[in-house]
Amino acid sequence: MNQQNPVFIPGPTNVPESLRKAVDMPTMDHRSAAFSDILHPALQGVKQVLKTREAEMFLFPASGTGGWEAAITNTLSPGDKVLAARNGVFSHRWIDLCQRHGLEVEIVDTPWGTGIPAARFAEILAADGSHGIKAVLATHNETATGVCSSIAAVREALDASRHPALLLVDGVSSIGSIDFRMDEWGVDVAVTGSQKGFMLPSGLAIAAFSPRARAAVESAKLPRTFFDIRDMAESYAGNGYPYTPSVGLLNGLKCATEMLLAEGLDNVFARHRRIADGVRAAVGAWGLELCAKSPDLYSDTVSAICTPEGFDAGRIVSHAATVYDVAFGAGLGEVAGKVFRIGHLGSLSDVMALSGIATAEMCMADLGLDVRLGSGVAAAQDVYRAGADPQRMAAQ
Amino acid sequence: MNQQNPVFIPGPTNVPESLRKAVDMPTMDHRSAAFSDILHPALQGVKQVLKTREAEMFLFPASGTGGWEAAITNTLSPGDKVLAARNGVFSHRWIDLCQRHGLEVEIVDTPWGTGIPAARFAEILAADGSHGIKAVLATHNETATGVCSSIAAVREALDASRHPALLLVDGVSSIGSIDFRMDEWGVDVAVTGSQKGFMLPSGLAIAAFSPRARAAVESAKLPRTFFDIRDMAESYAGNGYPYTPSVGLLNGLKCATEMLLAEGLDNVFARHRRIADGVRAAVGAWGLELCAKSPDLYSDTVSAICTPEGFDAGRIVSHAATVYDVAFGAGLGEVAGKVFRIGHLGSLSDVMALSGIATAEMCMADLGLDVRLGSGVAAAQDVYRAGADPQRMAAQ
Amino acid sequence: MNQQNPVFIPGPTNVPESLRKAVDMPTMDHRSAAFSDILHPALQGVKQVLKTREAEMFLFPASGTGGWEAAITNTLSPGDKVLAARNGVFSHRWIDLCQRHGLEVEIVDTPWGTGIPAARFAEILAADGSHGIKAVLATHNETATGVCSSIAAVREALDASRHPALLLVDGVSSIGSIDFRMDEWGVDVAVTGSQKGFMLPSGLAIAAFSPRARAAVESAKLPRTFFDIRDMAESYAGNGYPYTPSVGLLNGLKCATEMLLAEGLDNVFARHRRIADGVRAAVGAWGLELCAKSPDLYSDTVSAICTPEGFDAGRIVSHAATVYDVAFGAGLGEVAGKVFRIGHLGSLSDVMALSGIATAEMCMADLGLDVRLGSGVAAAQDVYRAGADPQRMAAQ
Amino acid sequence: MNQQNPVFIPGPTNVPESLRKAVDMPTMDHRSAAFSDILHPALQGVKQVLKTREAEMFLFPASGTGGWEAAITNTLSPGDKVLAARNGVFSHRWIDLCQRHGLEVEIVDTPWGTGIPAARFAEILAADGSHGIKAVLATHNETATGVCSSIAAVREALDASRHPALLLVDGVSSIGSIDFRMDEWGVDVAVTGSQKGFMLPSGLAIAAFSPRARAAVESAKLPRTFFDIRDMAESYAGNGYPYTPSVGLLNGLKCATEMLLAEGLDNVFARHRRIADGVRAAVGAWGLELCAKSPDLYSDTVSAICTPEGFDAGRIVSHAATVYDVAFGAGLGEVAGKVFRIGHLGSLSDVMALSGIATAEMCMADLGLDVRLGSGVAAAQDVYRAGADPQRMAAQ
Repeated sequence: MNQQNPVFIPGPTNVPESLRKAVDMPTMDHRSAAFSDILHPALQGVKQVLKTREAEMFLFPASGTGGWEAAITNTLSPGDKVLAARNGVFSHRWIDLCQRHGLEVEIVDTPWGTGIPAARFAEILAADGSHGIKAVLATHNETATGVCSSIAAVREALDASRHPALLLVDGVSSIGSIDFRMDEWGVDVAVTGSQKGFMLPSGLAIAAFSPRARAAVESAKLPRTFFDIRDMAESYAGNGYPYTPSVGLLNGLKCATEMLLAEGLDNVFARHRRIADGVRAAVGAWGLELCAKSPDLYSDTVSAICTPEGFDAGRIVSHAATVYDVAFGAGLGEVAGKVFRIGHLGSLSDVMALSGIATAEMCMADLGLDVRLGSGVAAAQDVYRAGADPQRMAAQ
Repeated sequence: MNQQNPVFIPGPTNVPESLRKAVDMPTMDHRSAAFSDILHPALQGVKQVLKTREAEMFLFPASGTGGWEAAITNTLSPGDKVLAARNGVFSHRWIDLCQRHGLEVEIVDTPWGTGIPAARFAEILAADGSHGIKAVLATHNETATGVCSSIAAVREALDASRHPALLLVDGVSSIGSIDFRMDEWGVDVAVTGSQKGFMLPSGLAIAAFSPRARAAVESAKLPRTFFDIRDMAESYAGNGYPYTPSVGLLNGLKCATEMLLAEGLDNVFARHRRIADGVRAAVGAWGLELCAKSPDLYSDTVSAICTPEGFDAGRIVSHAATVYDVAFGAGLGEVAGKVFRIGHLGSLSDVMALSGIATAEMCMADLGLDVRLGSGVAAAQDVYRAGADPQRMAAQ
Repeated sequence: MNQQNPVFIPGPTNVPESLRKAVDMPTMDHRSAAFSDILHPALQGVKQVLKTREAEMFLFPASGTGGWEAAITNTLSPGDKVLAARNGVFSHRWIDLCQRHGLEVEIVDTPWGTGIPAARFAEILAADGSHGIKAVLATHNETATGVCSSIAAVREALDASRHPALLLVDGVSSIGSIDFRMDEWGVDVAVTGSQKGFMLPSGLAIAAFSPRARAAVESAKLPRTFFDIRDMAESYAGNGYPYTPSVGLLNGLKCATEMLLAEGLDNVFARHRRIADGVRAAVGAWGLELCAKSPDLYSDTVSAICTPEGFDAGRIVSHAATVYDVAFGAGLGEVAGKVFRIGHLGSLSDVMALSGIATAEMCMADLGLDVRLGSGVAAAQDVYRAGADPQRMAAQ
Repeated sequence: MNQQNPVFIPGPTNVPESLRKAVDMPTMDHRSAAFSDILHPALQGVKQVLKTREAEMFLFPASGTGGWEAAITNTLSPGDKVLAARNGVFSHRWIDLCQRHGLEVEIVDTPWGTGIPAARFAEILAADGSHGIKAVLATHNETATGVCSSIAAVREALDASRHPALLLVDGVSSIGSIDFRMDEWGVDVAVTGSQKGFMLPSGLAIAAFSPRARAAVESAKLPRTFFDIRDMAESYAGNGYPYTPSVGLLNGLKCATEMLLAEGLDNVFARHRRIADGVRAAVGAWGLELCAKSPDLYSDTVSAICTPEGFDAGRIVSHAATVYDVAFGAGLGEVAGKVFRIGHLGSLSDVMALSGIATAEMCMADLGLDVRLGSGVAAAQDVYRAGADPQRMAAQ
């Protein structure tokens, strides 16, 4: 595998040089004062990225799945009822995790390619006068289908019936790349990982708890130790960690948040929007459609692209890997074989994106799809040219 | 903090140059074939280090604490009874974790500085005719006190009464540095982390399950998803991973096991023995005593050194950090303030060890302890000279 | 500057991950035996890349310019006459260096964009019955114009009149990327650097001396010490170096030659040919012309592309750098403002090349040139698809 | 070779983590504006380290030997007479270089272990009424013997007879570690390398030219191109470089000077003094003597230690390398076999120094020398304890 081509999987993302170096630290004593100078800025930086003043941040040496587990075990008890939509592999997996932990999940099955049905949620919550539903689970960005749902709408569904259920949000493939407003949206637990918008290797689960979620921890009866936020909170207060931390990744997270905040969150989001617009323009030029059913659902971090009926989309992914040393995402679950995915999140430039689009084009042509070479690239170039900073243009 | 001095904490250990580079990988697609070429050699390498042919290996993106949780949640059910000795902070914490997961722990309180009381275990197990005890927990090497217990003796205690309880062993600070014979000792679950004998950064929990432990997973009712070995096993079989893996650390683990096996496990253990002998000789020369009560308990990975009555041992640790940029381990729990610890595991050379010993000497002298400068170093040098490979000597 | 976009300058080239790590070594004692295990394989590897059995290799901590200086100071004396063509900036600079060292240069001024005029050389050499010309200088690949000349033809020109002049060849931007046959072509001194076909950072001048060139060193009167190959030869024989070597770069060179030989030199050359063909196809699709006047002169490592009359080609280079964070080469010397250059040598993949072509397209469009977006990319894709390994295609 | 032990050769020195990372850069376009942001701060930083406001800095991709060559070829002409003392291998080599470049060297042979005989220089210069001597060469710190001479005294020797000869100084193993006052001492050319006080890998020759030296360049007739400071000066003025620069090393130099200036030059020199004092105390405790004849000559960067008559000092060096994986410096030239050298310059901590001293002790004992284990360490510890920052002590 040529290690110089960028990857176009929807995470882990390409790691910028400076973050590679931030993570690659010599061993330091995590019980020393120096650790505190890494931990607290990392926590503070994540808070700013999540746009929250109220929530507390917790950083586990784990993956996003661990973050999901932390979200429910710290807030719920066996037998508790939660409400969730199933519209892709990742929402499916979170539901599965809840069931395996003894929760009762009211599943709203939703066509893949569509978003969280907030209106249906509102009905269900309104009907739940006894407040049997303890939490609503929402996958902000379904990585499997490239669908970004409105969390604000889910909050409205809760507020409409003044329902007290906690709002637990999977922001794994959105946070850091797509606007996320924890406080404004009344999110109670937000979960993400180091390997997406934070542009780091995998290995950190990031979970943010609102004061309400934080308060729920005392009555939550699901067993937990590794993921217990109380141990974390107590340790952080003493500038420590409840077990051995992944110091390099924490240092990377500190630097990643500095990088994002230095670029400016709005600029980061606009860059992701522009790059995604280019990919979508390419998809249109190829005569193909996204799995996401409507523009309001289009994800700025990953595009799941439907291939023609009867064609195995997985062949594009394996062909790209084998022949061109380029990694795309395969379709997962219900859409396996029907879509291939271009990840366009994290540290990606327009120029890198163009090489991914050009490669997808070659693969489709190699495999006999009716795609004109250069067509998608040209459509994306149009977007990227328009997106090139006019101030810098003027400075020429 | 001068990043060039070695650390002398009992883990994370000094990371060798080649492993730094093995971990620091550019992003690769963990769903590609290349991932399999990392995962399977890593699993196979760990098996060899554990001296097991029968057990299955599981690698979680977590810390050793996560490994403990994996050990119990995959084999036990709420209300199950387990037997454990409490003879240091880490055995204490594992017991606490069990209790928080709803297990009933029969605790044998054991003086810190002594080992697992195998005879007492034998009595308890013999008396447990109904086999109410489902598992025996054993901390191979108590990092807090520098005590290495005999796991073979615990196995004998079980065998004496043909007790079917599972034997779960915490080998976090022993495996890879001290001989560990999973099959010979009949260990059912062995737990360790990446950051000790494997000389890597923290971030991987390593858990090995014997066929019996593997069979127990179906009836084990403790909730788990992140740590469920069934998902792991199924994914490994398909050359995959149940969620996003820490690819760099897995690659590091592959290389670390290659490194250990290339040196030869017996040579690795002999090196740790020699370095530890040097440290112990120094302690003797200083007129101090180890926390470990007798030579058969001395740990080859960490020495907890008792300071004189009335002296706060923590001052040595903070003085070394502040004045000499050297990290030692503080006393934890019951022995806080009474001992300081010199970690001597992982990738350490005699030469590096001498600088730690020399620093400890300066600190003790600075703080008014009656220690003659050079005395500990000289004692250790005697050991290290004798330990210098006579074949290489001859080759001069 | 986004550090994740590839560079498209004609060297230094993109450094592969594995070579980055090979160069980034901790300090080692260059007077130890371990140094010999780096030096000699590096020397041996370079020999194989140069296709010579007879020549001796010398590795200086310097740039290619230092290599030129080593070539002449070790073989010539003040007042000696040399023959050289001037058809680009780099041949011009080598001539200048000769003049500053007191050599008399018979310059054959040659239109930029054309190659070494071997027929004219033959005439001059034939007319030089007294053998006043001591050396013929030849720039194999003119980096400024993207012209690759035939060294075999220069050798024939010498042989035609049995002229004994030494043949000194600048292979800086060819060796390692374009076929170079030192023995077959009768090259007496070949010069290159670490930062082109060897894919390393700059910092090593590589000079190969044939037995005849090696013999000339005793009578050569140009002063030299730093570049004296006699000191080098004597030190190498003792596994040493005459002064402090750049150990990391030497280790990188060892690894780079292993990498090239593992890929297979023919495969390396074919890859460069294919990538260059794609770039040239793009240039054709843009309706532009290369500076190189005819296909037999086209360089497989760099394309100098003529922009329309009246347009300042340098604007493309600065625009690409400022707006798209991509580095192209500017026109130098006579062709400054008239051409821009795309370097396509070293560790480059088709996919990376496509992103360079796509960027050049956007720049030209941004700056008002009549270039259709996607046109060059499509033309290159056609080449790269055909070039995709059919065996791997079949393996799908 | 264990890559974790520090090296104790008198350069290249141990490279700090941050400088390793500064040097290990991805490829950038050295013709871009970003290069200027590396080059000029590096030049400026070196100026401050040299304590000069007037001199111009030149940075060549070469070793210190290249710096010597730059010093003479830019200021002198064939047949010019220079005055030099020969008191070690490095002064010897510089003299040899001059002779090979056609200079007439008036050599003052001086016993190895003693310094530059300034009084004898004064006599010779006073006697040179015709000012036939064009330059005086001075080796500030003889790395072979561990002798640091007074450059101020050489300047006085020149001033005493108002002799206009240029003062060319080899500061390779002093600059950055020992005080160097270019302007105050009236140094005309100062030469050093990247791999000593600047703590970087080898690969940069650093040469500083006073206005007088700078003026001499026009009349200097020694041939040069690679080392011609005029090309350098012209290129620097245009934010460029006359050929391909070693960008990573230049970036490392920028960071190294920032590091030195942040620590404070006086603190850097005091640290070297303290560490050297410790080594010298150890030598005394061993009952051995330095090659340097008197305390005013003791070098703070390297100690050459005389072993007893009849003992081959080289055995210590090879024994340390083979048995303990530690690199010391061998004796060179006249003192080969008579001394071994401990380098203590660059990025070294007291703690690292102690491991070197402890290793030397073990080697000497292993090889039968009458050295008491721990004796040298204890003597050095005494120095390092006293040297430990009392303010930090107080802060405990």
